[in-house]
Amino acid sequence: MQIVITGAAGFLGSKLARQLLQNGKLVGRSGKPEAISRITLTDVSVPVGFSDPRIQVMAGDISDPQTIAAIITPDTNSIFHLAAIVSGQAETDFDLGMAINFDATRAILDRARALGTRPRMVFTSSVAVFGGNLPTRVPDAMATFPQSSYGAQKAMCELLVSDYSRRGFVDGRTLRLPTISVRPGTPNKAASSFASGIIREPLNGQAATCPVQSGTRMWLMSPQQAVRNLIHGHELDANKLSATRTISLPGLSITVRDMVAALERVAGADVTRRIEWSEDEAIKRIVNSWPGDFEAQKAKELGFNSDADYDSIIRAYLHDQQTP
Amino acid sequence: MQIVITGAAGFLGSKLARQLLQNGKLVGRSGKPEAISRITLTDVSVPVGFSDPRIQVMAGDISDPQTIAAIITPDTNSIFHLAAIVSGQAETDFDLGMAINFDATRAILDRARALGTRPRMVFTSSVAVFGGNLPTRVPDAMATFPQSSYGAQKAMCELLVSDYSRRGFVDGRTLRLPTISVRPGTPNKAASSFASGIIREPLNGQAATCPVQSGTRMWLMSPQQAVRNLIHGHELDANKLSATRTISLPGLSITVRDMVAALERVAGADVTRRIEWSEDEAIKRIVNSWPGDFEAQKAKELGFNSDADYDSIIRAYLHDQQTP
Repeated sequence: MQIVITGAAGFLGSKLARQLLQNGKLVGRSGKPEAISRITLTDVSVPVGFSDPRIQVMAGDISDPQTIAAIITPDTNSIFHLAAIVSGQAETDFDLGMAINFDATRAILDRARALGTRPRMVFTSSVAVFGGNLPTRVPDAMATFPQSSYGAQKAMCELLVSDYSRRGFVDGRTLRLPTISVRPGTPNKAASSFASGIIREPLNGQAATCPVQSGTRMWLMSPQQAVRNLIHGHELDANKLSATRTISLPGLSITVRDMVAALERVAGADVTRRIEWSEDEAIKRIVNSWPGDFEAQKAKELGFNSDADYDSIIRAYLHDQQTP
Repeated sequence: MQIVITGAAGFLGSKLARQLLQNGKLVGRSGKPEAISRITLTDVSVPVGFSDPRIQVMAGDISDPQTIAAIITPDTNSIFHLAAIVSGQAETDFDLGMAINFDATRAILDRARALGTRPRMVFTSSVAVFGGNLPTRVPDAMATFPQSSYGAQKAMCELLVSDYSRRGFVDGRTLRLPTISVRPGTPNKAASSFASGIIREPLNGQAATCPVQSGTRMWLMSPQQAVRNLIHGHELDANKLSATRTISLPGLSITVRDMVAALERVAGADVTRRIEWSEDEAIKRIVNSWPGDFEAQKAKELGFNSDADYDSIIRAYLHDQQTP
């Protein structure tokens, strides 16, 4: 079993790689667990921190089809395509967003088609495909009216992955991830960056700014749960998917106010006092266009899971920080 | 007012051009009717049959950005982008479908963006964007799960037109057209070709094959009504559009059996006896994935119209054939 992970320098890609190495096997086309012989990690910068002999590292620009051809080879069984320009950056740099979020995904699909090997492919999409006048709980059959270029690019790729799969060019599965919280590391240019920052920075003794109102409802998933769901998305039988390869994952629906209350329960009021509330109109516009709750009926039927509560998400973050 | 029509050698494009010439004016950015000074007709083959001095004819491949640049110029106020590879052909020739249905649309949008003139653009999409497990009447907020590459390509372009409009690169309006019936001319490679053929050929004294079951429910619009709606779609105020630029048009929901009954009422049983019933699995698979009825609530609020009944659609076809 030879696996490719794009965006592997990101926290989710590297966490997925570590989990796959630890598992040692993965269910693929045979329907049975197969030993993982190689994981190719690729990103614009070289993914670091791996010493396992099964890891191969390749830096490159995935908007270049020649780079894609070097990464995805005839012996590639599986692709986890996580690389993306995040929402805030794709809004300010339209061309970069189109190149990485759309053209690179198309290039990966075309490479799979040209090889004729029909690899399994897990592609990550986002709640940002939704927008406009939404019901309180978004059903699986909700139309995608994205209000950001990031969301539009992800929605277009969902259609590509489904059509390439329907035609047998690839065995794709698109997972619409909730906002990931608590993401380790430093703030990024995602409009949702604060959803980790207001927990992570105060826990590290630093100030954090919350750019949205406290009543804003978020749809969240912990990194640990996301990795489990990415692997489950790879392993499930494609025959259980019907008219689309796109699956809205279950998540935790919670207001920012309740996220902060959970932080206070776990770490105390001295920590939550480090949060500054200062609204940012550009971030609010994007975040408020995203739904805060989903039915995720199909995903639940397919065995995907959500986190139990936000307190345990914070505790899992603290645990992970202590055991990197 | 300078207008570009792509796919202008097609029956809908040429009918639209004739109607615009007859009207002599069109409402654009000013919100008032403006005199039409030029209509540029473009297609792979040269559109013929026009002698009006306002008509400019250009043949070219719109998947080539240089062709697009020659067609859409700084003085272009309006674009009716109708050119497409039809559903059946896009299914058998995937690359051609992607090149014309997707890449050319993107090239037109990018040309508008590069010019910075924010032209009005009417783009035609289709019921083929829908598929899977659908309610009897499809609501405006229904998810697009296309079951053909044509439908996937149209759905991707809907997202592009909305995002390019949201960003102010273009003032786009995507109209999801019902199946057009009765289309004049000869059969084409659209899976829906029969929806005109089973009326047109018998009326011309020729045999026609119906490849679907008589109970199949179709969502139809006459060419005359389609042209009126295309012009209305151009003229409406963009401020009335909200989270998306995509509008599912109203139509006539009717079974193939009732289409044939209408033909018998209008033209007699001698005519309907020329229809042969011979199911075609490939056509059935595509046509049966399309919805047969829509709410089209937003379109009705915006003033789009449907045909009253199928008898009058057939009579309008006969009338048009006598007065070309």
